[in-house]
Amino acid sequence: MKLNVDLQNHSYPIYIERNTIQKVHEYIPVTRKIAIITDTGVPEKWVNIVKEQCPDSFICTIPQGEPSKCFDQYKNLLEEMISHNMSRKDAIIAVGGGVVGDLAGFVAASYMRGIDFYNIPTTVLSQVDSSVGGKVAIDMGSYKNIVGAFWQPKTVIIDPNVLSTLSLRQQHNGLCEALKMGLILDDHLVSLFEQETIDIDAIITRSIELKRDVVQQDERESNLRKILNFGHTIGHAIESAYGLNTYLHGECVAMGMLFFIEDKTLKQRVLNIYKKLGLPQVPNYDTSTLLEYVTHDKKSSHNTVSTILVEQSGSYIIKELSFKEIQEVLERGPYEE
Amino acid sequence: MKLNVDLQNHSYPIYIERNTIQKVHEYIPVTRKIAIITDTGVPEKWVNIVKEQCPDSFICTIPQGEPSKCFDQYKNLLEEMISHNMSRKDAIIAVGGGVVGDLAGFVAASYMRGIDFYNIPTTVLSQVDSSVGGKVAIDMGSYKNIVGAFWQPKTVIIDPNVLSTLSLRQQHNGLCEALKMGLILDDHLVSLFEQETIDIDAIITRSIELKRDVVQQDERESNLRKILNFGHTIGHAIESAYGLNTYLHGECVAMGMLFFIEDKTLKQRVLNIYKKLGLPQVPNYDTSTLLEYVTHDKKSSHNTVSTILVEQSGSYIIKELSFKEIQEVLERGPYEE
Ligand SMILES: NC(=O)c1ccc[n+]([C@@H]2O[C@H](COP(=O)([O-])OP(=O)(O)OC[C@H]3O[C@@H](n4cnc5c(N)ncnc54)[C@H](O)[C@@H]3O)[C@@H](O)[C@H]2O)c1
Ligand SMILES: NC(=O)c1ccc[n+]([C@@H]2O[C@H](COP(=O)([O-])OP(=O)(O)OC[C@H]3O[C@@H](n4cnc5c(N)ncnc54)[C@H](O)[C@@H]3O)[C@@H](O)[C@H]2O)c1
Ligand SMILES: [Zn+2]
Ligand SMILES: [Zn+2]
Repeated sequence: MKLNVDLQNHSYPIYIERNTIQKVHEYIPVTRKIAIITDTGVPEKWVNIVKEQCPDSFICTIPQGEPSKCFDQYKNLLEEMISHNMSRKDAIIAVGGGVVGDLAGFVAASYMRGIDFYNIPTTVLSQVDSSVGGKVAIDMGSYKNIVGAFWQPKTVIIDPNVLSTLSLRQQHNGLCEALKMGLILDDHLVSLFEQETIDIDAIITRSIELKRDVVQQDERESNLRKILNFGHTIGHAIESAYGLNTYLHGECVAMGMLFFIEDKTLKQRVLNIYKKLGLPQVPNYDTSTLLEYVTHDKKSSHNTVSTILVEQSGSYIIKELSFKEIQEVLERGPYEE
Repeated sequence: MKLNVDLQNHSYPIYIERNTIQKVHEYIPVTRKIAIITDTGVPEKWVNIVKEQCPDSFICTIPQGEPSKCFDQYKNLLEEMISHNMSRKDAIIAVGGGVVGDLAGFVAASYMRGIDFYNIPTTVLSQVDSSVGGKVAIDMGSYKNIVGAFWQPKTVIIDPNVLSTLSLRQQHNGLCEALKMGLILDDHLVSLFEQETIDIDAIITRSIELKRDVVQQDERESNLRKILNFGHTIGHAIESAYGLNTYLHGECVAMGMLFFIEDKTLKQRVLNIYKKLGLPQVPNYDTSTLLEYVTHDKKSSHNTVSTILVEQSGSYIIKELSFKEIQEVLERGPYEE
């Protein structure tokens, strides 16, 4: 199926369908120079299927993992673009998860002040979330996504077949962001997680539709788009304090959401889904450590954090919480009301 | 006086007036954190006048000169932004020439995916040209402006008083870009150069008006904006091949224009202006060397260069010249018809 993202100057289509990766040449003008950016964890067979359809292309492979979303890789890739004599009319295709998409997208955003960018996300997380919306970035020091741009892709191609090589843990990790989207915006999406067998194609499509609607209303995250941060305030803190080499991002977001689900029955539903996905429990944590990460992360002079709460599945409440109130939430713990 | 640049989502005013540097606090919301970026060649007194008006500000000073428009300085400045805990709502003010403006602008474009950018140009070149239009960039290797963005300033403040400390050579260098604007778009601007004493305020205002009109019609240089490259094709080649530590950019553009002024009388007028400005003569050059720079610079698979020619002052012709034709132009030389 084809979804359109309608934005003022740079609308684009998203194709969601099995076997679309075989049809890249139908959706992307391939008669120009194309840099295919991927990482060492993406099975070569997916990359080669894309490459075979692009007669004048070359592959840049970065090491897999978040540390590649850094300044050095950014610079290396720009140097590769130069050494291949890429012009303003040439293009970059990302084939990989969110790490590849975010990094390759920022290269495309800034090389010659911006060239065409196409995204072929190959993880659940990137298919349900990061490939749509145009946020591209790299990390610096301990700051995630601190340098980047809003640079919309020209086309996104989502082929659920490529998930066949992805570990179950990585799949479930990505599903956490989809569940997040359901909890704030659409109970039907939540209920898709409660069926006997999980219909991943349906979840991807619904998540992308929801994210598309939000992005269309607030391309540059001045307002509405912030609701997508549900679960991220404490989630990021857990990720930074205890997550390194232990938890994945989606797993931390799942933990973070528990603190702000304000209804007992709903929380139980969510916990049942977590069990089904085999998600890790929230670890024992030190309140002041997490609080420090929360406040540090905000780069804010105000002593409040704009927080998303969910009382009823499919809807959200925005509340300014003082640092004191966040502290109380942390002291209460994720499993209490 | 106040000029408005009307662009879809990010229109902004340009103030052109003596003593405006004293009024920065009237034109820029200064009750937030402000990074003032400048270089070692900009007299401190100008920077301090700005700083005094921004209660919560700090100064970042880069070494003067084109080599500072590089990846390392870009990274350093981003790290400075982080270490000062700059948030999305804070701002950057550039106080300097085109080097400072281009670099600081790219930092502003990419820090946290874009924060407010204000430009206070302090050279003639930046006042008549580079401060307006939103092109920000850094160099990599021998490629000028190869990495960057289109990032419009929120306000530009042009105070001709700050030129009092600028060397005459640097002043005349900047005037070459203004003369370029006149030659392609407005004979009246050309005639301002022919008066007994040069009225720099009038030249600045007229140049900015002309550039503003072009940028409004073609913000992202898909088309019309390319006319501003008049004189730059061969000018850049001379700059790269013979200019290092010898000629300034505007001086090379002035040389480059001569090759494409197609009328004897007009060329004589222009040469008289060059004499008045004390511009250097075109050096002896090797045709094949320059030709290599021209073709290399294009990063183009086609063997043609889109070239701007001027037959009549204030108007231009666009012509696709083959490499062969460029070679002939070079063989003919700048002073012949
Ligand atoms: N831009 C956005 O809006 C946005 C939104 C959410 C997250 N993100 C970013 O996304 C990143 C995380 O993305 P991710 O979870 O996809 O991580 P990832 O890109 O690191 O991918 C996870 C792992 O899976 C491997 N992999 C990818 N495709 C595979 C496949 N088909 N089969 C087998 N292995 C495969 C990768 O090599 C990697 O080792 C973070 O950097 C985060 O900041 C961005
Ligand atoms: N963004 C654009 O659209 C655009 C257009 C044209 C040129 N440029 C760029 O502009 C740069 C050249 O700009 P430039 O000619 O202003 O050079 P510059 O910024 O290097 O300034 C020239 C010298 O003058 C010094 N200086 C600045 N203000 C001064 C003052 N008031 N008094 C005394 N000294 C002062 C500087 O320290 C520097 O040493 C190039 O990098 C070029 O690529 C950009
Ligand atoms: Zn997330
Ligand atoms: Zn120029």
